[in-house]
Amino acid sequence: MSKEIGIIMGSDSDLPVMKQAAEFLDAMHIPFELTVVSAHRTPDRMIEYARSARQRGLKVIIAGAGGAAHLPGMVASLTTLPVIGVPILSSNSIDGWDSVLSILQMPGGIPVATVALDGAKNAGILAASMLGMTDKTIADKLEQYKIDLRKKVEDKIKIVENTYLT
Amino acid sequence: MSKEIGIIMGSDSDLPVMKQAAEFLDAMHIPFELTVVSAHRTPDRMIEYARSARQRGLKVIIAGAGGAAHLPGMVASLTTLPVIGVPILSSNSIDGWDSVLSILQMPGGIPVATVALDGAKNAGILAASMLGMTDKTIADKLEQYKIDLRKKVEDKIKIVENTYLT
Amino acid sequence: MSKEIGIIMGSDSDLPVMKQAAEFLDAMHIPFELTVVSAHRTPDRMIEYARSARQRGLKVIIAGAGGAAHLPGMVASLTTLPVIGVPILSSNSIDGWDSVLSILQMPGGIPVATVALDGAKNAGILAASMLGMTDKTIADKLEQYKIDLRKKVEDKIKIVENTYLT
Amino acid sequence: MSKEIGIIMGSDSDLPVMKQAAEFLDAMHIPFELTVVSAHRTPDRMIEYARSARQRGLKVIIAGAGGAAHLPGMVASLTTLPVIGVPILSSNSIDGWDSVLSILQMPGGIPVATVALDGAKNAGILAASMLGMTDKTIADKLEQYKIDLRKKVEDKIKIVENTYLT
Amino acid sequence: MSKEIGIIMGSDSDLPVMKQAAEFLDAMHIPFELTVVSAHRTPDRMIEYARSARQRGLKVIIAGAGGAAHLPGMVASLTTLPVIGVPILSSNSIDGWDSVLSILQMPGGIPVATVALDGAKNAGILAASMLGMTDKTIADKLEQYKIDLRKKVEDKIKIVENTYLT
Amino acid sequence: MSKEIGIIMGSDSDLPVMKQAAEFLDAMHIPFELTVVSAHRTPDRMIEYARSARQRGLKVIIAGAGGAAHLPGMVASLTTLPVIGVPILSSNSIDGWDSVLSILQMPGGIPVATVALDGAKNAGILAASMLGMTDKTIADKLEQYKIDLRKKVEDKIKIVENTYLT
Amino acid sequence: MSKEIGIIMGSDSDLPVMKQAAEFLDAMHIPFELTVVSAHRTPDRMIEYARSARQRGLKVIIAGAGGAAHLPGMVASLTTLPVIGVPILSSNSIDGWDSVLSILQMPGGIPVATVALDGAKNAGILAASMLGMTDKTIADKLEQYKIDLRKKVEDKIKIVENTYLT
Amino acid sequence: MSKEIGIIMGSDSDLPVMKQAAEFLDAMHIPFELTVVSAHRTPDRMIEYARSARQRGLKVIIAGAGGAAHLPGMVASLTTLPVIGVPILSSNSIDGWDSVLSILQMPGGIPVATVALDGAKNAGILAASMLGMTDKTIADKLEQYKIDLRKKVEDKIKIVENTYLT
Repeated sequence: MSKEIGIIMGSDSDLPVMKQAAEFLDAMHIPFELTVVSAHRTPDRMIEYARSARQRGLKVIIAGAGGAAHLPGMVASLTTLPVIGVPILSSNSIDGWDSVLSILQMPGGIPVATVALDGAKNAGILAASMLGMTDKTIADKLEQYKIDLRKKVEDKIKIVENTYLT
Repeated sequence: MSKEIGIIMGSDSDLPVMKQAAEFLDAMHIPFELTVVSAHRTPDRMIEYARSARQRGLKVIIAGAGGAAHLPGMVASLTTLPVIGVPILSSNSIDGWDSVLSILQMPGGIPVATVALDGAKNAGILAASMLGMTDKTIADKLEQYKIDLRKKVEDKIKIVENTYLT
Repeated sequence: MSKEIGIIMGSDSDLPVMKQAAEFLDAMHIPFELTVVSAHRTPDRMIEYARSARQRGLKVIIAGAGGAAHLPGMVASLTTLPVIGVPILSSNSIDGWDSVLSILQMPGGIPVATVALDGAKNAGILAASMLGMTDKTIADKLEQYKIDLRKKVEDKIKIVENTYLT
Repeated sequence: MSKEIGIIMGSDSDLPVMKQAAEFLDAMHIPFELTVVSAHRTPDRMIEYARSARQRGLKVIIAGAGGAAHLPGMVASLTTLPVIGVPILSSNSIDGWDSVLSILQMPGGIPVATVALDGAKNAGILAASMLGMTDKTIADKLEQYKIDLRKKVEDKIKIVENTYLT
Repeated sequence: MSKEIGIIMGSDSDLPVMKQAAEFLDAMHIPFELTVVSAHRTPDRMIEYARSARQRGLKVIIAGAGGAAHLPGMVASLTTLPVIGVPILSSNSIDGWDSVLSILQMPGGIPVATVALDGAKNAGILAASMLGMTDKTIADKLEQYKIDLRKKVEDKIKIVENTYLT
Repeated sequence: MSKEIGIIMGSDSDLPVMKQAAEFLDAMHIPFELTVVSAHRTPDRMIEYARSARQRGLKVIIAGAGGAAHLPGMVASLTTLPVIGVPILSSNSIDGWDSVLSILQMPGGIPVATVALDGAKNAGILAASMLGMTDKTIADKLEQYKIDLRKKVEDKIKIVENTYLT
Repeated sequence: MSKEIGIIMGSDSDLPVMKQAAEFLDAMHIPFELTVVSAHRTPDRMIEYARSARQRGLKVIIAGAGGAAHLPGMVASLTTLPVIGVPILSSNSIDGWDSVLSILQMPGGIPVATVALDGAKNAGILAASMLGMTDKTIADKLEQYKIDLRKKVEDKIKIVENTYLT
Repeated sequence: MSKEIGIIMGSDSDLPVMKQAAEFLDAMHIPFELTVVSAHRTPDRMIEYARSARQRGLKVIIAGAGGAAHLPGMVASLTTLPVIGVPILSSNSIDGWDSVLSILQMPGGIPVATVALDGAKNAGILAASMLGMTDKTIADKLEQYKIDLRKKVEDKIKIVENTYLT
């Protein structure tokens, strides 16, 4: 089955964060690929990856990177697919500001759909919602996911309220 | 023709920024609607807007707001459509940080695809790229748009180089 | 006895912070309720909670949330009761700035009475002071509380001074 | 008629901002007093003002200040009335951060109900909502105020939508 | 022997930082007093302390506090002695910015001589340098202290250079 | 009459700010010198200035600089006199943070008494207060200055209160 | 004569800043080329430019860009020449932080020699100093430049001192 | 063999970071010296070091320091060699911002080639690239280093991809 989402990250050290996108897509039965593509250390691979993405059948690219994070923006400059950027709090980062701002503040013409710091799970959900624009099955699963989120909160309510009976 | 993109903003004072999304979609011949929806002053309207968006045929919602900007995140909590958030540098803002962080830093489960501060044009392009996932005509137009961006740069090159002949 | 203060939080993970408000009100014998209300995961519950608060007899709402914290502001948009917002330093937060700014920087018309990061105890004291505007018993208790704060400092003075006799 | 709200500011240069609180209270027919009280230049006056506030019949104090803004916090330490702090973007401020943080980040025991930078109007609304806890007339006026806010948005909707018919 | 320097802090939890000022003065044989004075919890004590400081023979006041740190600035407003402010990184602080800005950004007319975050030792040295303006013995000790600092670095040089012989 | 205070600045463009220190000292009849000393462009002059300051009779050095402001800290490393640092908001500065942090955050052993951004007037007052430690005339003048500050506020009170009679 | 320095910028709107590098090199008689290369809009041109730079005889590349500034870092990933990055305060920037952090915070392996915000002139000087490592003529010119800087300060000293004779 | 690179740091506590520059140069067989030079505690040594650097045969100076980091900028003011500045996250730092800004934001005329926070390895690479401008052996080694970086990423790709087969 052809992959619909490409998950890439600048370094294998980003995997503990980025795998949360993979796990969400897995649970949704949305086929994806996941690999390492470094803007700075494998620029040719990045160009090849981004330029071939659409014809290989990908619909959305999720790109995570830390520090001066150029991967999401550079990939966005090389494809017309929507690119979701995941800022990652790497070591030596200045509290994550570097990654957030290098992904978010793209110039006019080249958007990156940025999610929260270390927000790879949300990147997976956002990618699914893009597929869900035209795929009713996925849209229904997302609707169910929202219901489940609500139910999990409702389960917590009882526990919390009982603890603080006054 | 049914609207595919909904552009909403928290206040009519956001219009000078948000109309840049509209102008891009117009140029792309993508049908959109544009209106004011305030999370804090018209909460019922926001709920109605977000909950009915999918059945009204919208595919993507672009939501812009300044300050403690809750509109994009609240709309995202009320629909399974992808929501693009545009932070806006409003008066009394603390350099835009308030708007950027209230839109970007959404909790797990409810993503907002955030673009740069005042980046409404990029929000329009991002929305188009989402439609372009399955609509080849739009994808081709985006490809052409990228080519035009490149050509505009190439036109500037000559002017700049001639100014600084050494 | 009818509850006077409603303490709500976006997630049960906020409980270790938010219970400090509860403990203060408990010590003051001010009846309160405490529960989980998520702006993003239980929006209907939030609307119902905020809209019914006044007729249920609540006088003040204390709302705590982390990250892109929309709960305090959204509740404030849905009630005319005073709403106290508690920014919470959650995981993935950018040092708490996201929560502080999404609660504090509300637009004109919809104030949130914001306290310090993780300042739930102060939220409890502030709520009590609002009741104390017209309730002399509570005002007297707050006066006593201030005296006790002073006395605790005075007890520390001796210990500290003795350690550093020169 | 005795004053219910005291509006104070650290300097007469804060008046253009702080008068917005006065104007709101005026429109609500809530009696208030407004004056200059400087924590650093008139400390005795500040102490006298804060300590006598309750017996003079005040119910809420609104205190605005810029830079290293100590007025709201010091007044809060000297009264059991609720104190609303208004951070003000004064000249030489570092983008307002100094005022925001010196008012917001109060230690445990001494809360200040902080509103947005230059958010004096919201301070007025918040003070009114505190009176509205037990005063049904004011609560009703606030309800009407919320309705008017909504209507103003609704008036704008038509204008904005007509501009962007597609 | 009468005390020349008063070291005060807003809370006994500031002692591990503030005692570094005491230790420096001790080593210099400069008589000092050290105690707890809270701007917010013991305002009368603060006023009494600051107003009596000069006639009690103090020459300099060192005041440390965290969060919305009003102690140094308020003391400075109540005395004509030089006041040295020590920002302290307390719990719930937003990375120390709150304390730094509430001490540093004093309005025109009321200076506080601010040192680095947790820089109590430097506060002690600065106080000594003020005494050294007219006291040659202390000036000579400070000169010797500078020489010792230099020598300590020189001792380290050999160790470091030997480790990295190339 | 020998100069007691040395006012130096990194560039003549700092003069509009730094002259406020001079004007205060002038009004206090405290003899001072004022000149340009650049850490980066005239390092020898800086060394000579700082090293000779004490024997030339100076008691305090006030040093102002913008951007990566090294002048106050370097001068402090070269003299045992107290050094007051004035951060200056120069062009190309990042909102003044660069200057504030390069002056404030000195390492252990070498304090700089930092005042607010562009706070040269306060630097003058602080220098006077250091002289006032042992010079009763100056201390009395500072006491009078505080009284004048208070009176100026009191004059404003009437004007402000009359404007907002309710 | 073959060019030794390549000055590139992401947009022609960066020219008013970047030409300051050109003007310095011109004054030094160091041959340079200057053009527009956009990482996001002309990625192929960027790759070609960076990869061919060394064989075309360039010794240093100066790259300026604003916002999410990827040009300096991407060029550095594609050449072994030293790359100097100039952060530029563009419109929609968040006070320059985005550009500074996206250029400065490069990951291990791919350095960019970053200069101050809008510091293009310093980029020119830095490039010259790199040539001066092995080119005595340039080193001597830089020595002379430093002397001239010092002299300009010395000329200002008289003017400043005369204005403030006391 | 004469040393080509001088690595200096403000304190021996900077060694764990700064030795990464040394290790890179070692691996490249580029002769370097490494020592401690403190701007504030050994100013004469700093002046002597910087002024003699060129005649001792050094080609590049790498200077690391934390907090109010004046070493790189002061050394740059005293030599015409290129100076690479390494901001270091020291204890008591405000998240590294102090060190980054005091090194980066140098005034016009005196550049410092700043690398990322704790980016000493990149400082070593940058220094090597400066030598590589005219030394083909080093340029070739840097080319090989880039290839090795790419290969390391390629090795990781397989491992990462195998873990997430879908």
